[in-house]
Order: sequence, then C-alpha cells, then structure tokens
Amino acid sequence: MNGKIGLEEHFAIRETLQDSAGYLPNDCWSELSNRLLDIQDDRLRQMDKNGMEMMILSLNAPAVQAIPDPRKARELAIRANDELAEQVAKRPDRFQAFAALPMQDPEMAIEELERCMTRLEFKGALVNGFSQVGTPENVVYYDAPQYDPFWAAAERLDAPFYLHPRNPISSWAQIYDGHPWLLGPTWAFGQETAVHALRLMASGVFDRYPGLKIILGHMGEGLPYSMWRIDNRNAWVDAPKNYPAKRKFCEYFQNNFYLTTSGNFRTQSLIDAILEIGSDRILFSTDWPFENVDHAANWFDATSISEADRLKIGRTNAAKLFKLDRR
Amino acid sequence: MNGKIGLEEHFAIRETLQDSAGYLPNDCWSELSNRLLDIQDDRLRQMDKNGMEMMILSLNAPAVQAIPDPRKARELAIRANDELAEQVAKRPDRFQAFAALPMQDPEMAIEELERCMTRLEFKGALVNGFSQVGTPENVVYYDAPQYDPFWAAAERLDAPFYLHPRNPISSWAQIYDGHPWLLGPTWAFGQETAVHALRLMASGVFDRYPGLKIILGHMGEGLPYSMWRIDNRNAWVDAPKNYPAKRKFCEYFQNNFYLTTSGNFRTQSLIDAILEIGSDRILFSTDWPFENVDHAANWFDATSISEADRLKIGRTNAAKLFKLDRR
Amino acid sequence: MNGKIGLEEHFAIRETLQDSAGYLPNDCWSELSNRLLDIQDDRLRQMDKNGMEMMILSLNAPAVQAIPDPRKARELAIRANDELAEQVAKRPDRFQAFAALPMQDPEMAIEELERCMTRLEFKGALVNGFSQVGTPENVVYYDAPQYDPFWAAAERLDAPFYLHPRNPISSWAQIYDGHPWLLGPTWAFGQETAVHALRLMASGVFDRYPGLKIILGHMGEGLPYSMWRIDNRNAWVDAPKNYPAKRKFCEYFQNNFYLTTSGNFRTQSLIDAILEIGSDRILFSTDWPFENVDHAANWFDATSISEADRLKIGRTNAAKLFKLDRR
Amino acid sequence: MNGKIGLEEHFAIRETLQDSAGYLPNDCWSELSNRLLDIQDDRLRQMDKNGMEMMILSLNAPAVQAIPDPRKARELAIRANDELAEQVAKRPDRFQAFAALPMQDPEMAIEELERCMTRLEFKGALVNGFSQVGTPENVVYYDAPQYDPFWAAAERLDAPFYLHPRNPISSWAQIYDGHPWLLGPTWAFGQETAVHALRLMASGVFDRYPGLKIILGHMGEGLPYSMWRIDNRNAWVDAPKNYPAKRKFCEYFQNNFYLTTSGNFRTQSLIDAILEIGSDRILFSTDWPFENVDHAANWFDATSISEADRLKIGRTNAAKLFKLDRR
Repeated sequence: MNGKIGLEEHFAIRETLQDSAGYLPNDCWSELSNRLLDIQDDRLRQMDKNGMEMMILSLNAPAVQAIPDPRKARELAIRANDELAEQVAKRPDRFQAFAALPMQDPEMAIEELERCMTRLEFKGALVNGFSQVGTPENVVYYDAPQYDPFWAAAERLDAPFYLHPRNPISSWAQIYDGHPWLLGPTWAFGQETAVHALRLMASGVFDRYPGLKIILGHMGEGLPYSMWRIDNRNAWVDAPKNYPAKRKFCEYFQNNFYLTTSGNFRTQSLIDAILEIGSDRILFSTDWPFENVDHAANWFDATSISEADRLKIGRTNAAKLFKLDRR
Repeated sequence: MNGKIGLEEHFAIRETLQDSAGYLPNDCWSELSNRLLDIQDDRLRQMDKNGMEMMILSLNAPAVQAIPDPRKARELAIRANDELAEQVAKRPDRFQAFAALPMQDPEMAIEELERCMTRLEFKGALVNGFSQVGTPENVVYYDAPQYDPFWAAAERLDAPFYLHPRNPISSWAQIYDGHPWLLGPTWAFGQETAVHALRLMASGVFDRYPGLKIILGHMGEGLPYSMWRIDNRNAWVDAPKNYPAKRKFCEYFQNNFYLTTSGNFRTQSLIDAILEIGSDRILFSTDWPFENVDHAANWFDATSISEADRLKIGRTNAAKLFKLDRR
Repeated sequence: MNGKIGLEEHFAIRETLQDSAGYLPNDCWSELSNRLLDIQDDRLRQMDKNGMEMMILSLNAPAVQAIPDPRKARELAIRANDELAEQVAKRPDRFQAFAALPMQDPEMAIEELERCMTRLEFKGALVNGFSQVGTPENVVYYDAPQYDPFWAAAERLDAPFYLHPRNPISSWAQIYDGHPWLLGPTWAFGQETAVHALRLMASGVFDRYPGLKIILGHMGEGLPYSMWRIDNRNAWVDAPKNYPAKRKFCEYFQNNFYLTTSGNFRTQSLIDAILEIGSDRILFSTDWPFENVDHAANWFDATSISEADRLKIGRTNAAKLFKLDRR
Repeated sequence: MNGKIGLEEHFAIRETLQDSAGYLPNDCWSELSNRLLDIQDDRLRQMDKNGMEMMILSLNAPAVQAIPDPRKARELAIRANDELAEQVAKRPDRFQAFAALPMQDPEMAIEELERCMTRLEFKGALVNGFSQVGTPENVVYYDAPQYDPFWAAAERLDAPFYLHPRNPISSWAQIYDGHPWLLGPTWAFGQETAVHALRLMASGVFDRYPGLKIILGHMGEGLPYSMWRIDNRNAWVDAPKNYPAKRKFCEYFQNNFYLTTSGNFRTQSLIDAILEIGSDRILFSTDWPFENVDHAANWFDATSISEADRLKIGRTNAAKLFKLDRR
C-alpha cells in the first residue's frame, strides 16, 4: 500500500553515532552508520520505493538515557532535537519527529518535552528505556514516584511516549553473561521493555493520568501473548491485587498502549496482537536502519489481514494518533 | 472431552511443602498445602469431574534445585521419587511420574534419571530451572558444558525433560526488586525459563543430541510469539551466527520442544502456538494445584480449535510421547 | 458485556405469523409463535438478562417478499411497519426498527422506505431476499435494472439495507428436492443470500451508488471464507471482467457490506471474518427468536477477540452505523 | 519447500479436451489445451521449478460425468484411465493416478474402480460431481440408494474419492441464469460440490461405510466456515435429526473428509480450515492447469502456518493417505 507511516525510525547525530556500534558485526558498520546519519537522501529513496509516505524520526539508542550526568543528558537531547527539527523542516510532508528526553531529571525532561511539543511541533517522545542517573550503576525506571510530574505533563501535552528498548546493564541481568547473542533485539530488548511497561502499569500512573499513551515496538515486546496469564495465573486465589494500581494489567494495556510492527514482521504474531489489543492500537513501523524498509513493507503489504486493517495499521491509526492530517 | 492427560501436575512431600509457600496469599496456604500433599483423594475427584484420565506427577518447585549441597539434593530427589513411585503404584491407570533430579551434580542426575526411567518406570524428568550449586549464589544453567553427559543420557533413555520455571535469585534480576508482583507466574517465571531454553538452543546440545525432547509449560513461556524475531532481527545483516549451535533457534524449537497449556488458558495464545509449532507438539496440562483442574478443563474442552487437535492436545500427543498406550 | 445492540431480531404480526411455521418442528410452534408476537415482555427480559440494550426489530420471513401482488405486499408492509412503529414508541431506548418493503414494485418500495426513514424514524430496511412478483414463479432479484431508482433512494436516505435470507422456490433449486434438511438456516439460506449479494456486487449498483450499505447476517452467509477465490480463480488468465461492475467483487464487499453474527456463534468464523473484512464492519446480532439471546450473548461475551473489538462489534459499530447515540 | 505432492492436477485426452473450453476466455485456449494435453514436458518443468515432487493426476471435467449413456461413459473412462496409466508408468516417481469412473452405472463404476485400484495401481478416484444418466436432464447424486454398493467397494478397496466440482445444469440452478460470471470456480462449483457433500453426510453412507475417505478441493468448498451453523442453527430446538444419518454433519466432516488447497491460496481460509478440521486432513494441491503451479507453491511455501503443518499439508499427509512411501 502507499501512504504508510512509520514511527520507529531512527537517525543519529555525530555525538550518538557510536551508541549503535556493537549491535551488528563490524563489517556492517559502514552501511549502518551511513544509514543513521542520512535523512534526506537514501532514506527518502527507500521510503519512495516502498510506499512509505512518512517517518516519525527518533534518535538512536541508548544515547541520552546512558548519560548519567543530567545536564549533559539535557544538552545532548536539546542538540539532537534541534538538529532533528531542522531536518523535519526540510520535508515536513515526509518527516516528523519524536523528542529525545533527559529523563535523568524529571524537571528537565518536562521542560524539553514541552519545548519540543509546543515550539518544535514534535509528535511525542521516544525514550530508550531506563536512565542511568548520576552513576552508570544507578538505574532508574519511570514508574518511580519522582516521574509523576513528568507523566502529568505528557498527558497535558497529549504527547504519546514511545518506550524503546535498551539492553540491561550487566549487573542487573546476569543471565545473559557469556551469552551475548541473547542481548539486543534477539531477546533482551523485549524482556527489558516488557518489564518496564509492566512496572508502569502496576504503579498506578495510568490511574492518575488516564490519558497517557505509551507506544511499544516490536509487536508489543512479547506482551500480547502473555497478557492473559499475567492477570489470570492462580485464578482460584481470590486475593487483592498486591500492587499500587487499581485495575488489572490488561486494562491499562488495552487502554493506554499502542504497538508497532517494528522489527517483528510475523503474520502469526500480528494476528495474535489483533486478537488481544485490536487493530486500532497497532501501527506500522520498520525499525530503520536496523531493519530494511523493503523487508517491513513487503511483508506488511501482503500480510494476511483485512484491507480495512491494513489501511488502519499502515496509515490512519498513526494519522489519528499524531493528528497528522490536520496540518 | 474425556481421557485428558496432564503433565504439569505437582505434589509435595513434607520436606518440600514449604517451597510452595509465599507464592500465594497466606489465607490460601491451608488449601494449597492440602492440595499438594493429597494424591489419591481430592485430586482424583477433580480429575474425575473434569474428564482428566491421567496426571503425570512432578515434585513442587524449586525443591531439589534450591539445595546447594549436591548430596542433600540427591537425597531429597531420591526420597521424593520413591514416594512418588509408591503413589503411582496405587493407581498406575491414573498417575504416572516425572523424576526430580539433583542437577547440581550431573553424574548424580544421570544416575537418578536412569534409576527412575528403568527401575521406577517414570516417564521423564521435570526440573525446576537452574540449580544452585555449592552456594546459593552459584547459579548453574544446563547449557554449561558439564551437562553434556546428562543430555547424552536423557537422549539415550528417551526421557522427555520438562523445564519448569523458578524465580531468579535477587542478585541476578534486580529489575524485579521492589516489584514482587512481577515474580512467579505473573512474569518472572516465563522470562527465566524462556532464556534457559534459548541458552540450551544456542549451546549446540541439540546438534549433539538431536533426539532430546524438552517440554515447556505455560504455552511455551512466551517463546512462540517472539520466535520469529529471535532469528530474524536485523535481517539485512548477512552475518555468521555468533553462538555455538549450528542452526537457527527456531529449528531447535520446532524439532526438540513441546509446549503445554499449563496455567495459560488463553485461546488466542493457543492459536498462535498452533501456527508456530503445530498441534503435534502442544499438550494439555493444568498446573495443579496452582491452577484449578476445572478452569483448565472447561477452557480446553471449549477452546476454538478443531476436534482433531483437541484430541491430540488433550490426550494422544501425550500418549504417544510417553508411550502410555503401550502398557 | 452490557449495552449490546442486535440487528437481526424478528417479530411477527398476526398476518405474517404463519410464515415462520414449518421451519421448526411442530412441538416448538407454541413457543416460537409466542416469541414472535411478544415485544415488550419476555423479549425485554431476555435482553435484560443477557446485557442486550437494544434490538433493531424486523418483520419475520419471507412475509412481504412472498406476496406476488404488489399492492397487497405494500399493504402488508405498511401495516407491519406501523405496528412496529407503535411498539418502538413505547420503548425507544430498547427498540428501534427496520422497514419491511414491498420490493415487488420499486416505486412502492421507495415510497415506503422514505416514509419509514423520515416519518417513522426507522433505521433502515430489512428485506427477505428475492421477491415473487405477479406470480409465485416470477422470482426477481434486486440487481435487476428496475431497482436502480430504489438503490438511489436508499443511498440518498442513508438507509442500511439488511439482505435477509429466504428459501429458494423449488423449481429454482432442485438440488434440495427430497433433502429438506438442507433448506433454511442449515444451508439454503446462506447460498441463496450469498448469490444475491454477489449479483448485486457484479451488477455495478455500487459503482452508481457507492454510499450503499448492505448488511448480511450469519457471519456473512459464507462469503468471507470464499471471497478471495471469487476474485482470484484462474489467476494466470489476464482477462477483462465479464460482468457489468467496474471493480473486483471483494472491493464492494469490503466497502459496502456489513456482517452480523446472527445465528453463527462460531469463534473460528468470527476470526476469519475479522481477517477478511475487519472488525469495523461486523456487528452483534442474535436472530431472535430463531436463536436464543443467551446462546448468542454467552458466546459473544466470551469469544476470543480483543476487548476493543468486543465493544465495537457488540455495540459501537451499530451505534455509529445507525446514529443511535445522536438521539 | 521441496517434495510437495498435489492431488487436484488435471490432464485431458483428445476426447475430453473440449470439456475444458468455455471456462476461460478464448484467447487462453491455446495455452490451456497445451497444458491439459502435456504430461511429461512443461508440467514436469513447472513441478521442478516449484518444489513439487508429485502430481496425482485426474481427468478434466466434467468429462465422463456428462455422458448420459453409461456404456459410452464407461468406454471413455477406460480409455482415459488406460492412457493415464501409460503416462504414470513413464515416471511413477513423479506421477500417480486417480481413476475416472462411469458413475452413471454403479456396477460399472465398481468394476472400473476395482480395475484401476488393483491392476493399474491407481491411488483412488476423482469424480466430477453428479452424473447425467440416460438423458442430460436426469441428474443423479451419489447419495442415491443405488450407490450403496459403490461406497462399499470404495471402502473395501480403501480408495479415497475426490469429489470434484462441476457446474449445475441450467434448469437446476436458475439463480445463475444471465450471470455466467458466477458459474465455475467463482461460485457455482463450490456451492454444487458442498451440497453434494452434505447430501452424502446426511444420507447415512458414512454410518454404513465408516472407512470412506472423501476429498474436497478448494479449501473445502466453503464448508469449514459454515459447518458449525449447519449443525447448530436453532440450537434451542431440541429436535430429532430429520435426515437418515445417525450423527451430526460435522462428525462426518471431521472423520471422513479431507480438504485440498487447490485454487484457494488464501492464508485466512487455510487458518480457518486448520481450526475446523485440523492440519492432518488438509493437503496441498494446485488445480493445474486452471491455476499456476507457481501461484500455488509460492503462496504455500510462505503461508503463515507452522513448519510442521507445512510439511504435513505439503507432503506427508498425502504420502500417508495414498501410501506413497511404501513403494
């Protein structure tokens, strides 16, 4: 189909380029780094060839989240967002933007989100998982109470928040030690991000800010398949929930979350996602440059769903969520 | 349907009973401990009422795996297996057995598996994830090289190996700290067991012992939904695999693994599993006493699959895998 | 779920009651006739018990369509519509109406549709398949050219048109002779209605009146499963379409048709329909009194789809299609 | 995948070639007639290119079934079967055969089936729907009592019976008059064959000969989607079945029927079929030469099912059903 919109589509600036090294074999680095730094050239050709009208761009990972010093994190975020705004201004018909945010300091994050949403006309934020705050070992997730004002701001600004993966630090996930092939998109990304999402659900933040919209990539980081069991294990036990939130996990998942197809071009999983969360909350994405646009598009254009859902997932859900057709 | 066979069905002996405390609220303990200790009484009534002909019984968790001293682990395993053999002998038409194994010492594990398979006529083994060896902090997974002779023995004895979940120890999974509601069957069980399974696949053990049969509970611990991405992320990168095994993860998954429905009574997930691994490798189970037999059976008897698959998943796959009809 | 809306829900007036005899065994007649004649009593109790907020009511079958004399057909339609309007007026919060139409004469049909839509505030029309015109053997389908003004009117009035089944007359479908068990809802209803729908698609009426909305019951009368083959058989043959319409059958199906679940409470078929036409075009219905409200509701409330789709199919699609919430 | 086996794969002899004219536009006739008459040349190239190891060949339609004179029908069947046997003898590793049968006379049909199964080593029979007997208007279906000895013979010979479509004669299906685009594979083939299959189910023939194996092409001629409704309409009516057979339609469908993918290369429908009848009863086929081998194979090799099911549907189900690996 033509007119597809993608929303997990990355770029790098010089300062963050090296963050993407190491995920792929060395002999891919030249290609990958070119892909990350390019916006107006090959990227547009790939989009043109594959019926992709728009990318909502975001900084590569982990970038800002891996800078323990909040002021340096903020500085980098601002620089990246400003560079991105310039690129978008050249082709606003083809590119829009997600903000990078210095989540190390909730106040700074709010300030930058507000600047991006109002002055730069960004479409939301994309954050690469937990932040390291102060020291590399001080890992902070956004269900922590100090983020409450941030979520209030995200709701107030109606800014969808894309929770993008990153690898756990080694001391937090020893199970992968000596098994580097399980890190990154193979497995660790999904587990890390799914747990972060579950922590948010359990925290009660969606009770306080029911208008929050969280986006998960990679067909939901495994959550759709397991969501029933998450709420229903030990069903004979009539016990009060033991977490702060008021409702079942699945209610937040169904009401506050959106999924994208980034990097998970599997029809079976897409069908399962449709049967769990419904096609109104699933959105096409490629995960460029870590995945090819043609791989994503060829699969999606032919995947075994209704044409009505293809249009929604491929385009109109995004147009609605990000108010793209009101320009 | 009548004649259902289940294979994630637990019991406890006095020495292991406390291992099941703490998972459920205190006011359930009386009921849960009764359920665990009973074999011939209420358990059979539940089975009778719900069309369940047979349970292949296994010790509760983590039990043997959590005893760092290998000799004590062996002692407990032997005692549990002997007690189980006695119970099975009373109603071999209704109960069969999986061996508990002192995996802390591969030689002891081999010896006990051999004893159970040949002398006690057990149907395989059920092991509760990693073992703590020597000290509680020394966590050992079975992809470690010292387990190669064990896997050789399991293949030689044609003993299906049920890889059952346990919680990670705290220092290995800090992400759950302060979020106990994510432990156990809600989430941590699945993640822990899925990674253990992936480590086995990557290790090459299935290249060396292609006849191995590994069983995963809970509809595959999330793996079916993510299996495509595990092998296909970054598909434009034409790189050699960076793990010891020769083939893709999914090939081992499709050829050496079986899934059960234990504790995951979700039709959508079952359909996805059928479309990923096929109905010949999915088997009914309840996860008694942590789940109710009626919850499992009522769901399964009505779940939206073909009657042919209902018969296979409910009964004949197990009869074939465990050679139950050749008695 | 509560708040369900159904739109294949029948009643009879004295003059049409006998039309429903013969479909069911004689010993059901007392119950069936009571069900057909009742509106405000047991019907409402069934709805209350099963979370059904509203029924859009329609006359039983074949009724008006089986009266060869157009004026008598019109007379009956008017009487039925007037009686229905009176019933709806008593509980407009629980009942709305579809018009019966004397399709024997397109002009009369237009006139009565207009009267019902504007003066009686009906929500559309429900017509029981082909009409017998002049003589019982003169069978007329609505793809005939004389119905063009009728379709123009239906589009202009934005009146959804429910194409309800009836049995073929014997000389038109000898294959059922001596096999009465294949008539009615078992098989002949579906075949008859599916072909009528295909004839409409091929006729070009949707090219001329693209705003037409046709509703099919019984999960689409078999069409979703076969729609691909209808357009794609002999795919190597690059031939011009040999029917009057401009586009493929499936394009009209996807853009001009809605399906209901009436009398087809099968999860597998619902999933297939979702994957063919999308959940925005599927609507809950029971087919009362030929089916039980509890059978429909118990199935639907638990069927294996997303909660988002349950809400849409159960209620909001109908509310939107019939502008029910704008009252 | 390699090694695929197909079983709705047609050829013509000179005498039957014209039977295939008229289904396709005239400018395809040269290509189609070449395809029908060729066996050892382009057909094998198509198979080689698309991973198809074997075709079980059958005569085109309606051929023998449309010859009212039984002796002439027999004569033609014998000639076609003998010619086919010669072709198969040249490449028994690539071709096997279904018998054409003069069903006009049950005794002749038995005799020819026996000759084909025992002397010619055919794998079963393929019959093109009803037969015209004596006169073109005398249409006979095989649920008629005179076919009982035939079904006894088919069971005794363990000969799977492929019930292939043909168009109804005009006087039997007036609904298609003036709508030729609904004839053939678009719609009429499926309806005609589905009803024939339902008549067989209702007749009790599967009670008397439970070993019968009937094969339906085109993903089951629409039956899987509607099978539930066929048995469950009017579920509140507790009535005795009103047809001769002892059990529900679906029980015969599930126990005596096999489906092929011929001409229906739709993943959604395949998934529905798997969820209705199970993957052990679905078999790959192309419908050559009316469909392309590459269309069938490219779809099937990538369709969203498990690899285990791909192997079964693509090859091993056929190998088992026709005992092909015992050569």
